[in-house]
Amino acid sequence: MIRLSSSFVRTLREDPADAEVASHRLLVRAGYIRRSAAGVYTWLPLGLKVLRKVEQIVREEQDAIGGQEVLFSALQPREPYEISGRWEDYGPNLFRLQDRKQDDYLLAPTHEEMFTLTVKDLFSSYKDLPTMLYQVQSKYRDEARPRAGLLRTREFIMKDAYSFDVSDEGLDVSYEKQRGAYQRTFERLGLPTVICQADAGAMGGSRSEEFLHPTTVGEDTFVVSDGGYAANVEAVTTMAPAALDDAEIAALPAMHIEDTPGASTIAKLAEFSNRAFPGKGPITETGEWTRFEMLKHLVYLLTSPDGSAEPLVIAVPGDREIDPKRLEAAVAPALATPFSEADFEKHPVLKKGYIGPEGLGLESESGIRYLVDPRVVPGTSWVAGAGEQDQHVYDLVFGRDFTADGTIEAAEVRDGDPAPDGSGPLRLTRGMEMGHIFQLGRKYAEALDLKVLDENGKTAVVTMGSYGIGVTRAVAAVAELYHDEKGLAWPRQLAPADVHIVATGKGQEIFDEAERIAGELEARGLDVLYDDRPKVSPGVKFKDSELLGVPTSVVVGRSLAEGTVELRDRASGEIREISPQEIVDAVVAEVRSA
Amino acid sequence: MIRLSSSFVRTLREDPADAEVASHRLLVRAGYIRRSAAGVYTWLPLGLKVLRKVEQIVREEQDAIGGQEVLFSALQPREPYEISGRWEDYGPNLFRLQDRKQDDYLLAPTHEEMFTLTVKDLFSSYKDLPTMLYQVQSKYRDEARPRAGLLRTREFIMKDAYSFDVSDEGLDVSYEKQRGAYQRTFERLGLPTVICQADAGAMGGSRSEEFLHPTTVGEDTFVVSDGGYAANVEAVTTMAPAALDDAEIAALPAMHIEDTPGASTIAKLAEFSNRAFPGKGPITETGEWTRFEMLKHLVYLLTSPDGSAEPLVIAVPGDREIDPKRLEAAVAPALATPFSEADFEKHPVLKKGYIGPEGLGLESESGIRYLVDPRVVPGTSWVAGAGEQDQHVYDLVFGRDFTADGTIEAAEVRDGDPAPDGSGPLRLTRGMEMGHIFQLGRKYAEALDLKVLDENGKTAVVTMGSYGIGVTRAVAAVAELYHDEKGLAWPRQLAPADVHIVATGKGQEIFDEAERIAGELEARGLDVLYDDRPKVSPGVKFKDSELLGVPTSVVVGRSLAEGTVELRDRASGEIREISPQEIVDAVVAEVRSA
Repeated sequence: MIRLSSSFVRTLREDPADAEVASHRLLVRAGYIRRSAAGVYTWLPLGLKVLRKVEQIVREEQDAIGGQEVLFSALQPREPYEISGRWEDYGPNLFRLQDRKQDDYLLAPTHEEMFTLTVKDLFSSYKDLPTMLYQVQSKYRDEARPRAGLLRTREFIMKDAYSFDVSDEGLDVSYEKQRGAYQRTFERLGLPTVICQADAGAMGGSRSEEFLHPTTVGEDTFVVSDGGYAANVEAVTTMAPAALDDAEIAALPAMHIEDTPGASTIAKLAEFSNRAFPGKGPITETGEWTRFEMLKHLVYLLTSPDGSAEPLVIAVPGDREIDPKRLEAAVAPALATPFSEADFEKHPVLKKGYIGPEGLGLESESGIRYLVDPRVVPGTSWVAGAGEQDQHVYDLVFGRDFTADGTIEAAEVRDGDPAPDGSGPLRLTRGMEMGHIFQLGRKYAEALDLKVLDENGKTAVVTMGSYGIGVTRAVAAVAELYHDEKGLAWPRQLAPADVHIVATGKGQEIFDEAERIAGELEARGLDVLYDDRPKVSPGVKFKDSELLGVPTSVVVGRSLAEGTVELRDRASGEIREISPQEIVDAVVAEVRSA
Repeated sequence: MIRLSSSFVRTLREDPADAEVASHRLLVRAGYIRRSAAGVYTWLPLGLKVLRKVEQIVREEQDAIGGQEVLFSALQPREPYEISGRWEDYGPNLFRLQDRKQDDYLLAPTHEEMFTLTVKDLFSSYKDLPTMLYQVQSKYRDEARPRAGLLRTREFIMKDAYSFDVSDEGLDVSYEKQRGAYQRTFERLGLPTVICQADAGAMGGSRSEEFLHPTTVGEDTFVVSDGGYAANVEAVTTMAPAALDDAEIAALPAMHIEDTPGASTIAKLAEFSNRAFPGKGPITETGEWTRFEMLKHLVYLLTSPDGSAEPLVIAVPGDREIDPKRLEAAVAPALATPFSEADFEKHPVLKKGYIGPEGLGLESESGIRYLVDPRVVPGTSWVAGAGEQDQHVYDLVFGRDFTADGTIEAAEVRDGDPAPDGSGPLRLTRGMEMGHIFQLGRKYAEALDLKVLDENGKTAVVTMGSYGIGVTRAVAAVAELYHDEKGLAWPRQLAPADVHIVATGKGQEIFDEAERIAGELEARGLDVLYDDRPKVSPGVKFKDSELLGVPTSVVVGRSLAEGTVELRDRASGEIREISPQEIVDAVVAEVRSA
């Protein structure tokens, strides 16, 4: 039994100054967590109880699919991460440190390398596989902008699991098991999720899905279609038009350079084109020019983890912006930053406002990498800068007049864009990443030489999967979903207590009766939170009870004299008057009904 | 049920190359732990089960005395540790790191500062106290010499608890509660401990006791007397003889300088004295000179955490060595290193081999700090160097002919030395520190300004206690105590499983019967480890069973045809033949009997 009179629980009337979201505000105010540094939190007694319940559900579902729990240190040596490339790839997101001998260590952001090495240590035959290992453990990432309480922190508890198989089919089976375990886990946590195709990003690998919980406070944007497509925006592939064949291309009007004084932006260029060449545009009925065909060229400096840098020009239809997250995912582990004035000065071929494909490409004299949006296919016709002040090229046909070093998925995805699987138009939605499952494939096993003997006595590289759930973030997501203006309203399976007994008033008989009820409920196996504080007003106690958010509470107060106590339901607000003789059974029934 | 055929358990026939002690050797060989870096270990599935059982016992005993569990991050900001002085005092033992903004952080060795600040955040009145908080969490210390597997590591799991009281009497009550909880905890873990007076060392504070588990592999030396005294050697205080009064001192022979050619060591000086001045020595019957009264002067460079250094001369009776650990504790947080030749050259007053008190002391011209052993009391008479080559002073009386800046407890403690409480001669014993309880007093609360309003409305500084148990070390200590030449032999309450079923032989009926027994035992609520590996020889399975150390095992093998299976007791080696119909009840009875 937790007695509020002597417990390390203090509620706050004021919101923390830095709280942007409800979960942060309420978890701090209700005394569940406490900030100890930027993006680093302390779990107070009630918060820890919720955290442990989340962990337990996660563990049970991992165990149910044959997961075996282990525990790695957060402190790990540099070498395995050097071999995998992550020591560099993670850049400033990695907490690095040296020991007294100046040997390099890191605080692990995840443990792919260490699990790989440990399996390599213990296993040597295909008969040892498949195996599924997991841990529930503190991870560290030096986020640039920790924010929103537990939603984006620099230390967080994560369940990370890894599967090891000999064959691709085996990996598919392991992946499906985790996929099912994740669905059951989030269901038990009371968190609706959408399974989205994801970009594998810096982790390498092939099949990759995120479990996104739709919420306006989420940092991730994802898309869904009515036909069932769902993907992280980073993973959306663009529907490209069909390319023309050579004969069709040959029949298109020839390119021509025009003076376009002052048309240094896409908007100005479209406006100029409609003024100077009315009716010559590609819109069938009107001959109008639109921003779409004004091919926009954007220049970035691409910096690799090793510090080397090169320019990159990206061409997108003029009506699209670059989505920084899609760009980031497309160029990872390199970082793309917009070209500075100084950068432009170093490359005179890049004439600001009038950049076109002329002179670009790795094969060209400039050697500047040039990538185009997937909508730029052979036979598409564009207007682009001519590389000279106040000049543009019209009827510039891709595959005839210019080529590129490849395509890039960096343009924004918009509401109404077609789903790549043809399942209808996309809708943009905000969500929070709760879990992520990947088929890593053989990347880590190759790098760290994890091989086993197969059935024929030949060595085979093991194929792996990696499966993460943000445990601390799940606590925040639950708090975000289950609250109202008065405070938290925990789902029963995650509440820090089964029942909250509130004794209000001054009479000793009230406290005696509350004590009896609390004791009997505890004897019946319930976790009881008992507000036994003397000299605290009923108003304060009710407010605290609503803020703390235990699903069921019992108020023992003035009405005791008339032979009743109150049974309150936090979520519905319902209040029932019940006799003290019946209250214990009523509470037990309520709690067990869940 | 853990099935060995598919579990992440692999036993090794070879000892790890770096294993010095049985617990290290066996925990690695049995597949409980795995090294990932110097002093950093990974917990494999069976090891994690034992670890969790130890943690659970620790938690239950903390909860039973009203402890409230919280959880702090290992990653903490520099500032609070700067204020307490530990950022510097811990020297190279602290893992320090910087984040992307170049702000300083550390991996906490313990969390006194953070608990103090959190209580300060939440509490403001004497009515809020006393409170007892604890956590079970990973700690980091950059040990110079990690060794002996889990016995001395750089990452380890620790239960650290902190009590907060308004009054000294309250602190005494909290301290006694923890003391009792520790006794019950170690009893439940099956680890005999001796409660030893300890030196509070770098932690500050007053009352301090260590729970030492007597074992030859322990790194701590402690002393016990038949009368019940027990102390860490660092904490032993020397029984000093009674001082003489001024009249008695005046009656002693006057000091005199003698030529002592070549007597540059204590041994040579004693030998010379007996040759040159036979019968003039202090031994009553014979007039013999002994090494005791040849006052030995040792010179150290004392380096403070801030890097400043000063010389220190220590005088001890010539028959005693300096104990490095007692010296370390006496000068902490400074470090004492023996004077180098270069150091001696800088201080000509320190004539090697002939150093005496002349010219020493903070008040003297040299300003060199001079401390003496507690046996050097007023009226004691000594032979010491005269500060000149080949000369010593005889009949040099402390309090008349020389004084010092104070005393220091740095001389070795020896078997037979008197206990400071008069409880008889001391015996030296080796032990392992399993727990440590301290009265920190107001040191941290003063430094971090933790005050509450007392009953009279005045601000009062809170007084604190700090209480630690090495959880990972406890696993090693148990393995160290409970094993034999064949392997581990866990006490029942900590074993990774209740029963180990071993199916040996080739017949399907053997595996079917083993499966049935394993299933029924699991249905009865037991944790079952089932060696279901096909094509593994009985010899290997028996060896593994002995190595893994589950207290009870059931062998289903050839004798099944004659209607029996074997019930084996790991600790006693006893084997009973039991019918398959009765085995489940027999095992349950065995397990429940504990």
